[in-house]
Amino acid sequence: MKKNIAVILGDGIGPEVTQQSIKVLDAIAQQYKHEFTYTYALMGADAIDKTGSPLPDETLSTCLASDAILFGAIGHPKYDNDPAAKVRPEQGLLKLRKSLQLFANIRPITTYPALQHLSPLKAKNLEGVDFVIYRELTSGIYFGKKNLSDDKTTASDDCVYTASEIERIAHLAFKHAQKRRKKLTLVDKANVLETSRLWRKVVQEIAPQYSDVTVDYMFVDNASMQIIINPKQFDVILTENMFGDIISDEASVLSGSLGLAPSASVGSGVALFEPIHGSYPQAAGKDIANPIGSILSAAMMLDHFGLNEEARLVTDAVQWMLQHGFVTKDIDPINSYATTAIGDLVKDFIENKL
Amino acid sequence: MKKNIAVILGDGIGPEVTQQSIKVLDAIAQQYKHEFTYTYALMGADAIDKTGSPLPDETLSTCLASDAILFGAIGHPKYDNDPAAKVRPEQGLLKLRKSLQLFANIRPITTYPALQHLSPLKAKNLEGVDFVIYRELTSGIYFGKKNLSDDKTTASDDCVYTASEIERIAHLAFKHAQKRRKKLTLVDKANVLETSRLWRKVVQEIAPQYSDVTVDYMFVDNASMQIIINPKQFDVILTENMFGDIISDEASVLSGSLGLAPSASVGSGVALFEPIHGSYPQAAGKDIANPIGSILSAAMMLDHFGLNEEARLVTDAVQWMLQHGFVTKDIDPINSYATTAIGDLVKDFIENKL
Ligand SMILES: [Mg+2]
Ligand SMILES: [Mg+2]
Repeated sequence: MKKNIAVILGDGIGPEVTQQSIKVLDAIAQQYKHEFTYTYALMGADAIDKTGSPLPDETLSTCLASDAILFGAIGHPKYDNDPAAKVRPEQGLLKLRKSLQLFANIRPITTYPALQHLSPLKAKNLEGVDFVIYRELTSGIYFGKKNLSDDKTTASDDCVYTASEIERIAHLAFKHAQKRRKKLTLVDKANVLETSRLWRKVVQEIAPQYSDVTVDYMFVDNASMQIIINPKQFDVILTENMFGDIISDEASVLSGSLGLAPSASVGSGVALFEPIHGSYPQAAGKDIANPIGSILSAAMMLDHFGLNEEARLVTDAVQWMLQHGFVTKDIDPINSYATTAIGDLVKDFIENKL
Repeated sequence: MKKNIAVILGDGIGPEVTQQSIKVLDAIAQQYKHEFTYTYALMGADAIDKTGSPLPDETLSTCLASDAILFGAIGHPKYDNDPAAKVRPEQGLLKLRKSLQLFANIRPITTYPALQHLSPLKAKNLEGVDFVIYRELTSGIYFGKKNLSDDKTTASDDCVYTASEIERIAHLAFKHAQKRRKKLTLVDKANVLETSRLWRKVVQEIAPQYSDVTVDYMFVDNASMQIIINPKQFDVILTENMFGDIISDEASVLSGSLGLAPSASVGSGVALFEPIHGSYPQAAGKDIANPIGSILSAAMMLDHFGLNEEARLVTDAVQWMLQHGFVTKDIDPINSYATTAIGDLVKDFIENKL
């Protein structure tokens, strides 16, 4: 299989973690006789420094011409601490998501027996936890009409959803559930919100097309409890933008390390893959950052290409690494391995040298 | 001190848990020479059965004429399972809150060393956790204008806040922080929402009046993580209606038992005190329900009356009970005590007989 991958190294630790993913993708290509080519593009603080824009036109056209985008991280404190800054690194990512119509943010929540000691939850609450959250990313209250009255004493935010916005992400979530444990949970607040009632109606209408998938409905306040007390009940969670923002961040702490968590943002065209962690500028260039979040994002990209066996080999490699204590400093401050060493070991595992 | 207390026993386990609180309040009255009189009123399924209305006019006038309301629980499955039911028990509580303008819902989050084994969190994450959440209860997206387009394909919910709605609850939260560890955290999404920016502005304007209180600001998605990974950082959390719904339910699972958690809903007039648990009809009449949520709600009522020493004696009694294993079946299925036995023991502790 031939694939053109746009690579955006981005800011902070973005470059060094993404380079490990490329090492891994190259090993996969070699092993399975695929051809992955990479086109590098600028975004974020790096792009502002070099071109003045957080998302240069060239980056957008590179991304549009690619089969997928592998992205590192965005953001630099020199822009955060300057309230007068007119261009901000994060604008690049927001504009890219919008231009590519990336309407679904996908976050797998996995826990690892070898890392149970890092989780805030007790081992018994973590056992068997493996679910994925589909968060709508382009609509809802974050994108609705905002208003502040002239006297500045009344503010409003409008939350709007259309049936077609719900349908397109619901189909993706149902399809994913079919490949997993065949359960979909819609998280909403249908007892109070009109938009939630529309979500429920659309999901109910689509459900018969996926008759092998069991659907249930859960209010968001209850979901925020269930994610802690009984997370293993979930398989695929589908939810609107703001609820997804809150519960996917909540769920991300279960594994014990944000450094491990990958994500995908998909739409009708090119999809983007990135670790959920930030640019962590304090660690940049020190060869200490955890590349697993990026490597697992690359595995999600392989799955997206339909290369499920290849993706599985990468996730198996990661499981093996964690089980055998090959981890970066954030996971084990005493016996730790460098970013590049972790990348090399994952590559060796794929090449059957371990 | 003389106080008239309106008592709404309500549905399911409501009556039996509330009766324990009255036992406790009577012991406090005796010990400190107060005079508490109780006027019983109907609400919920109980009121529908007896009068046809979930909130009879007489109940409302009894409540308005009282100094505080002690409430049990609401709801019965015979109404839940009947979608055709025109009157529903819960409407009683919503109407009462609205009539009394109860704009602030207050939920203390306490963890008990003796119950650490019940919590989903590890002991080290629970140590020293003691905070209180102020949730705005009468405005925001739950009460905003809702719309469904004629073709039923577009739905919307409007979130509106006025500066005065924010001010009145912010003052309560600041005052409470002054009596505690003097830290207030506003939970919002000010990077995205206009209403959140208004919350931030109003809180910033009020803050100088409470110069001994440290104020910080946290995005709701981050708060949903921090409540799990580092809950002891919080003292008083202030937030809008929907965020408060989500994070107060999330935080309620930390202690390991919903049966222990009290709440207060306050406004400019009469305040209402109730355990956060539901009516739990399966347990009704069996003398097995946990009365501690109600007893601690009664303690919040004492605090509300300014009877801080009395409130403290009740919470000390509860601490002692938990430490010595005097708990209901939900906490310890093997060595458990009856609802009435727990009430009697708290009374005995107050009367210095233990
Ligand atoms: Mg977030
Ligand atoms: Mg709730």
